[in-house]
Order: sequence, then structure tokens, then C-alpha cells
Amino acid sequence: MMNLWQCLAAAAMCGIASAAEPASAPATRPAATRRGEAPPIVSPEVRSDRTVVFRLRAPQAAKVEVFGEWSDDATPLAKDDNGLWIATVGPLPPDIYEYQFIVDGLHIPDPTNRHVKPSATITTSILEVPGDTPLLHEFLAVPHGTVRLYSYQSRSLGTLRSLRVYTPPGYDQNPEARYPVLYLLHGWGDSEGTWTDLGRANLILDNLIAAGKARPMLIVMPNGHAEFARSTSRPAGQRNGGQPFERDLLEDLIPYIEANCRVEGTPAGRAIAGTSMGGAQALTIGLNHPELFAWVGAFSSAVFRSQSTFAAATANPKATNEAYRLIWIGCGKGDRLLPRSQELAATFKDHGIRHQFVESDGQHSFMLWRQYLAQFAPRLFQESENGTATK
Amino acid sequence: MMNLWQCLAAAAMCGIASAAEPASAPATRPAATRRGEAPPIVSPEVRSDRTVVFRLRAPQAAKVEVFGEWSDDATPLAKDDNGLWIATVGPLPPDIYEYQFIVDGLHIPDPTNRHVKPSATITTSILEVPGDTPLLHEFLAVPHGTVRLYSYQSRSLGTLRSLRVYTPPGYDQNPEARYPVLYLLHGWGDSEGTWTDLGRANLILDNLIAAGKARPMLIVMPNGHAEFARSTSRPAGQRNGGQPFERDLLEDLIPYIEANCRVEGTPAGRAIAGTSMGGAQALTIGLNHPELFAWVGAFSSAVFRSQSTFAAATANPKATNEAYRLIWIGCGKGDRLLPRSQELAATFKDHGIRHQFVESDGQHSFMLWRQYLAQFAPRLFQESENGTATK
Repeated sequence: MMNLWQCLAAAAMCGIASAAEPASAPATRPAATRRGEAPPIVSPEVRSDRTVVFRLRAPQAAKVEVFGEWSDDATPLAKDDNGLWIATVGPLPPDIYEYQFIVDGLHIPDPTNRHVKPSATITTSILEVPGDTPLLHEFLAVPHGTVRLYSYQSRSLGTLRSLRVYTPPGYDQNPEARYPVLYLLHGWGDSEGTWTDLGRANLILDNLIAAGKARPMLIVMPNGHAEFARSTSRPAGQRNGGQPFERDLLEDLIPYIEANCRVEGTPAGRAIAGTSMGGAQALTIGLNHPELFAWVGAFSSAVFRSQSTFAAATANPKATNEAYRLIWIGCGKGDRLLPRSQELAATFKDHGIRHQFVESDGQHSFMLWRQYLAQFAPRLFQESENGTATK
Repeated sequence: MMNLWQCLAAAAMCGIASAAEPASAPATRPAATRRGEAPPIVSPEVRSDRTVVFRLRAPQAAKVEVFGEWSDDATPLAKDDNGLWIATVGPLPPDIYEYQFIVDGLHIPDPTNRHVKPSATITTSILEVPGDTPLLHEFLAVPHGTVRLYSYQSRSLGTLRSLRVYTPPGYDQNPEARYPVLYLLHGWGDSEGTWTDLGRANLILDNLIAAGKARPMLIVMPNGHAEFARSTSRPAGQRNGGQPFERDLLEDLIPYIEANCRVEGTPAGRAIAGTSMGGAQALTIGLNHPELFAWVGAFSSAVFRSQSTFAAATANPKATNEAYRLIWIGCGKGDRLLPRSQELAATFKDHGIRHQFVESDGQHSFMLWRQYLAQFAPRLFQESENGTATK
């Protein structure tokens, strides 16, 4: 069979042949076609009318579908005589969508789309449909912060752990300044990269800060799966929400951040929030550690089935209201987890614990969580915020 | 059909159920099995004897193979009664390997391996086989630098561009210090993330710096494909090596780096190197811009078919020898591109241009390029280095 690695070398030679051509050669003519080869596949192709064309070369496949967040149903692709499968969807509302191909039952990312969703599994691609006016997550002509990749050896877990940290604009230029920090947790299927690559937390904060709507802050995005090993893929879901992650966060991660980043290091300067599984982690850890966190957010949250999760918070509502500056809960009306958030808000209401609860149009998706971050972040670390029971 | 996004929500609920269990529950029992579901798939599984087990659930597939850098041939997987395909390879020498599954002719990454190769296409996973003694790319108990994700609006290209920057240990703690910088370019199939996620440039430098073998330096890793758009996947290979990338580098990227990072900003403090297509870019740009770069490296390089690439360097060997502190060329003996490097070295030799040329055991692979970086980086920015003709 063909040696892939030598094939790549040949492709490199082919790809660079264009450099010898005159500068007037049309830039849109794919290099490969000059060699009589099949033209490169473009997928997804986002057209100006916001329709999107998906393509996959799979001559041996019997059935190919594309399945994305724009619909609850998959769309079949049609095969041409060359084994190229094609489908067009939309026009789609401007947004960022997850999608995947289903090839004879196998879920795979779009191989020609370099924007893959960072996740516990590699099955999902990212589609961005721009709008006529900028969306809250777009890269605009404003000062930009930086996303930093860190790794640390977790003593509590005995493994190497990865995380991402957003530092706001000005962080490098003001070496004496200290900042508040939001610990932002991901859901069960996700990883430490999801909140930036798909959630665009960095760009959302850049835009909020530039508009004067949010305080400059750090965002720490850890790996919420406490039992992932480094070199091998371990199944997700193993006690994710339990003590291993909490121990890692409290004993290893927070000390690492406070030693390596310029953060305020006070409860009033620390927030914790998350989505789905990460929401449950944020609630459990945040509400049991008032000495660490004064701000807690739960986006489309799961709730751990532990009797003790909210025992501390509900046992002494007055102390809870004094300790926490904001407890913010949001969930989409189309989310199966909505009853969990409703029950949680009812519990807080019954005990007179100040909180904010938002039910929104939307499902269990970053399409909603990007909006939630844009609603939540402006409330953080403000002198005036104290939370009000809105439901 | 099943709604994927609600399925994920259900999975989140399933995954966190374990939190309510007593702490003594075996941590290795997958959560999903408690619900009577199929156990999660583990792939790749690296065993202590350095054999590796690959698994893929694809009940409808007729043929599944695994194809990795440990062999020129693919290994067939065998299917069990549940549609799970399994193969075992090795024992493998300790190293990092690229691999992919081939499912009825379709090349895909291992969906259960979160370590996917950042690339122009998403088809390849990363397998790390640890050794008994640490390898040059391993995360060790030494001071660690940081990898930063940046984006910038390229005026010359009219597009948003991503890059990664390694800052060495101590960078944040010494806000007055300035550092030399290596611009490190990737090959045709790769992207700005490949040199860290697969090439481990950051860890290699951490280890070299800790051992006193390399000077603390920044490494700037741009996107070498000058015509990738932001939201859509454009075919790679379109004039990659020509003027668009060079214009972006010279007019946008270098000014961006010098405005946003603390670099020395002199030719003696700037190096440029790359692999394959990136090697050709490094040679073309580096050797035509002695006012910018004094150090040039080409790893398993392609060579652009332009008569002018080396015209400036060969026209005045004396000036070339005065301008460049190091011209370093390395290529594997198993690489189809070896003749290009040999011809290049012969040209330099004919003209009396000082250079170093290394022929190594190895192919067109990061398995070799990690070693090359570890050989090249220690020579950079040293007072004593001036290059010698070794061949």
C-alpha cells in the first residue's frame, strides 16, 4: 500500500510548485489541479447567502449524513460519480455551530475542516457563519488578551494536567497589576480547550472589556475530567464530578494559578462557573467553599445527586447571603436539564438565598453558553452586584 | 433519529451519577457500565510492555486498518461480535507517533483519542509511548515556559491569522528582559499548532534550557498557509510558499511580535527554520533577508523551484558568510526530499558558503524533527557559533 508519510512529502513538493509561477497566476486556482489530480475538497463552504455546502470524499460509503446544531435531524449527502458526497443546508442564522459527518453509522469530524472541537473525543467540527453585524464572539478591532497553554503536575491526581488561561489586554504591559479570576469549567464531553475554541470565551471578554461592560479578569479553564491520563485516552465520566476534580482544583490548580499568574487571591476576586457537568462542579465546589469563591455561576447545569451539595448553603442562609455576591443560574427551555435548574432555584428561594435564575430560549449548547458568559461576566467583581431573587 | 445534543446532556447526567456513590467505589469501573450500556472504548491503550491496542466501534464497516509511523504498512483490525474492531501492535520504541484509522478507505483520527494532530486536515491522532528514561520531549520537573495563542489581523492577507508563541521560563518574572526569537515554520500538511502538540517544541526547549544547553528564547510558530480563511476551510497548497506568506511574515507578523513580545529585535537575535514546505520558506525568506535573520535552519526541506531563491546568497559568498551565523540543513536518509538538501548543500559548498549539513537515519516525520530541533536550538544565539562546512 501507499506510504502515507512519503505521500505527504510528495504533496509538499506539489503544493510548493506554485511558488515558481508568476505572481499574476490566479490565487484561487488550486495547485493540485495543475497536476491533473482531483481538486482539493472545500468543506464547509460558507456562501455569502449563509447557505453552507458540506463535502466528503468517501467512495466506498453507502450512506453519509451531516448532523449539526442547526437542526435536530441529520441531512443526507448525495454521492456523485467520483465518490464525492455533497449536501447544502441553510441559509443559517449567523452563529457558531457544532457538526459532524455520520458515515455508515460512524460519527467523524469533517476531515477538511481544520477547526475541530477540542473534546474528550474527536468527532465534531466547528462551523462559523458570520453575520452582517459583529456577533459577541467575533474578533474585532479592539485590544486583545492572550490565551496561554499551561501544564502542571497534579500531586493529588498523580498525572500531568493541561489548562488554558485567558489573560486580559494590558496584562503583560502592567506587570504590577493583579486581577480577579474566573474559573470556567466545561461539560462532560468537553476539554480544557473547548471554552476558547468553541466557546470563544477570550473574544467575548475582549469585546466586553473593550465596551467597558466587564472588568479585566483572568479566565482559568481547567480539564474537568480528573482521571484523564496523559498518553492514553481514558474513558470520560469516571467520577468526573467527585472528589478527584475538587482535590485537583483546590490542592493543585488554584495554588498553581496563584503562584504563576497575577491574581488578587481573595474570595471577592474569585468566581467559579461551568456548563452542564461543569455547572455541577461549580455549584458543589463554589457553594461549599465561601472562603474561596464569592461568585458562582451554573449554565445549563447538571446537579450532583449528593445530599450534601447544598447543605452548607441552605443550613445558614444568612451566612450564605453574606458570603456570596452572586449565584447565577441559567438554563435553556429546550434543555432536558431544565428541571434541575428549576429545582435548584426553588430550593434557594425556599431558603431565602439570594440568586438570579434565567430561563432562556435555547438548548444544551455553546450557542446558549456564549450568551450566558456574555451575561454573567459583566456582573462579576463589581462593587454594586449583590444578587437579587428574580424568580 | 436520536438528537445528538440531548444525547450529550443525557450522557452528562449519566457521567455524574457516580458523584453520589460512596468514595470507596472502584474508580476504575466505568460509569456507563452501571447503566447496562456498552463500556467506554479505550484507544489507544499503551501497555506497560509498550504494546499498543487500538479499538474502534464501527459495526457497519467492512474493513478497518490502523496506519501509523511505526510501520510503512497498515495493520488490519479484527471485528468482534459487537462491532468493535481491535488490533495490537508493538512493542514500539518509546517515541511519539502519528497514526490514523482507515475505515473502508476513509482516513480518520481515532475518535476516542483526544490528542488529535493540529493540521490543515483532521485525519491524524497522536500516540505517545513513554520510555524508561525521559525522552527529550517529555514534561519533566524543570521550569516550564508557556505557549500562548495569539490572533492578528493580517493587512497583507486581509484575513485573521492564528499563531502560537513559546515564551521561556522566567519570561513573566523578568518584565525588563528581552529575548532572541526563533521563527519556526511547519510543513504543508500542518498548522500553527503542530510544532507544539506534536513537535513538543515547548517541552524540548524547556529541557534544553534547564540543562543549560540552549539560551532562553521565544519560538514563534505561525500559520504557514497564507490563504487559509477564518471561517471556511480553504484548500492548502495554494501558493503557500510564495509571496503571500512572505509578505504576511515581514509586513504583519514580525511587526506584531516585536510590538507584543519582548524580543531583541536584531538580526543576531532572530532565527528562522522550518520543516518541509516550512524549510523552503525559511531558506527563501531567511537567505534573502540578512537584515532580519542571522540564523537559518532547514529540516527535511523542500526547495522552491525559483531561480532567485539562492541568487542573493551565492552572488556574494563573502557577504553571506559575514551575514549568517549559521545555515543548518538536515534531512533523513529515508526521505524522498533528501536530494533537495544534498543539492542545496552542494551549491553552498561550490560557492564557499559556510553551512552545516546533517544526513540522519529517519524519514519525513516529526520523529526526526524533534531531534533536529534539539540539535539546532542549542547552536542559536551563541557567541561562539559561526557555522562550519561539514560536508
